[in-house]
Amino acid sequence: MNTTLKIGLVSISDRASSGVYQDAGLPALHDWFTRALRSPWQSITRLIPDEQALIEATLIELADREACHLILTTGGTGPAPRDVTPEATLAVAHKVMPGFGEQMRAVSLKFVPTAILSRQVGVIRGKSLILNLPGQPKAIKETLDGIFAAVPYCIDLIGGPTIETNPEIITAFRPKSA
Amino acid sequence: MNTTLKIGLVSISDRASSGVYQDAGLPALHDWFTRALRSPWQSITRLIPDEQALIEATLIELADREACHLILTTGGTGPAPRDVTPEATLAVAHKVMPGFGEQMRAVSLKFVPTAILSRQVGVIRGKSLILNLPGQPKAIKETLDGIFAAVPYCIDLIGGPTIETNPEIITAFRPKSA
Amino acid sequence: MNTTLKIGLVSISDRASSGVYQDAGLPALHDWFTRALRSPWQSITRLIPDEQALIEATLIELADREACHLILTTGGTGPAPRDVTPEATLAVAHKVMPGFGEQMRAVSLKFVPTAILSRQVGVIRGKSLILNLPGQPKAIKETLDGIFAAVPYCIDLIGGPTIETNPEIITAFRPKSA
Repeated sequence: MNTTLKIGLVSISDRASSGVYQDAGLPALHDWFTRALRSPWQSITRLIPDEQALIEATLIELADREACHLILTTGGTGPAPRDVTPEATLAVAHKVMPGFGEQMRAVSLKFVPTAILSRQVGVIRGKSLILNLPGQPKAIKETLDGIFAAVPYCIDLIGGPTIETNPEIITAFRPKSA
Repeated sequence: MNTTLKIGLVSISDRASSGVYQDAGLPALHDWFTRALRSPWQSITRLIPDEQALIEATLIELADREACHLILTTGGTGPAPRDVTPEATLAVAHKVMPGFGEQMRAVSLKFVPTAILSRQVGVIRGKSLILNLPGQPKAIKETLDGIFAAVPYCIDLIGGPTIETNPEIITAFRPKSA
Repeated sequence: MNTTLKIGLVSISDRASSGVYQDAGLPALHDWFTRALRSPWQSITRLIPDEQALIEATLIELADREACHLILTTGGTGPAPRDVTPEATLAVAHKVMPGFGEQMRAVSLKFVPTAILSRQVGVIRGKSLILNLPGQPKAIKETLDGIFAAVPYCIDLIGGPTIETNPEIITAFRPKSA
């Protein structure tokens, strides 16, 4: 009696949301999950500008009304004045998961020294795990490859469906003793 | 004129505190300190459920009234709804010590990818260092092996007794220039 | 049409500021930047005691009135009761940059296990990047060697001048795709 995993994908970018350029974050996220997941899933996508109140409202809608088990944002985590994704994510958090931010930066630091500038956070709101990912498709893939092994067990613990992964892409880890 | 190190050991678990199963955290902690410490020490133990207000009250009692120099919690640091040990610990903190949480997760990540889900923190309250440890005996030992080298110097700096360790288990590090 | 990089250097120490001993932090910082920077820069220095309100006022003055692009503090980041530099820095922050604290500790941990006790943070206030460095000259150099590659790009993103570095000391990294 498994249920379908519901994933919210939120691309946060002033320029992509106003049509100045094509959003590349949502396709990169969708592509990764298509390759990585074996169990049933569906996604809901949003493309919004770097406005903190709007990001907060979008995350709350996807968590509380749409009941997404997993919400991924892309973009808006740097030091520039318009980058407010982490502030919006922390503002709607019930629990902060500091290991995700630390490990996402540690993974990215293997590729670029400027990963230190990323302010990504991971939080839980109700029964939703929310993770901030980088904006670039290459960095999105590197980050998910580096941290997703722990996500299925986290979703188990907060009451979501059992996620099965494609071991050629990622192997879910669930501790035996827990 | 050394004084005895006073250690508070707090196991936080709904099931162990209600007798559903035997607590394994306090014995694991006691065993590690028995092997690791050479200087005199005594411990005070508590076994309590995952209730934030009770955890806070217990930490305050052990720090302020019992004057424990070091307080170790075990359990309650994951993402599940009842896991509130980090929130309780931060709520009673005078100073946050972010390096402990980071390094405890980095140490555990060498053993299991799901260490990223641990929300452990380290804080100072008055003259007490409070550290959240994992719940599993194996992870308790791995974490203490990985971070305890810095604890004696921290206790020095906050006005506690000089801790001497058994170098077969852990070698305390005290910088010369400080 | 480059402008001169303005660097605020703040040594925070009760004993050095009262003349009990000679401050070693400001000379170490000045020396590192003299060797590391090729583009024009100037510095403003302050030597103050470990008083939180005074540290906050000094950081605000250097950021808002002196318009420093980069502010480095040295000292006051440990667990001792008088160590309040991180609290003062967070109190004046507009954005927290968690990667700097994490990576500064990770770099220092390669040299001493007690690096875990450092509570250093990095933040942005307006157009200023503020970083807490350790107090010891050797640790100051090790830390700047380990994290400065990402600083010029950060200063770019918050609207400061283009920093050029001496590649024998440090190579600035700027991602191509950003």
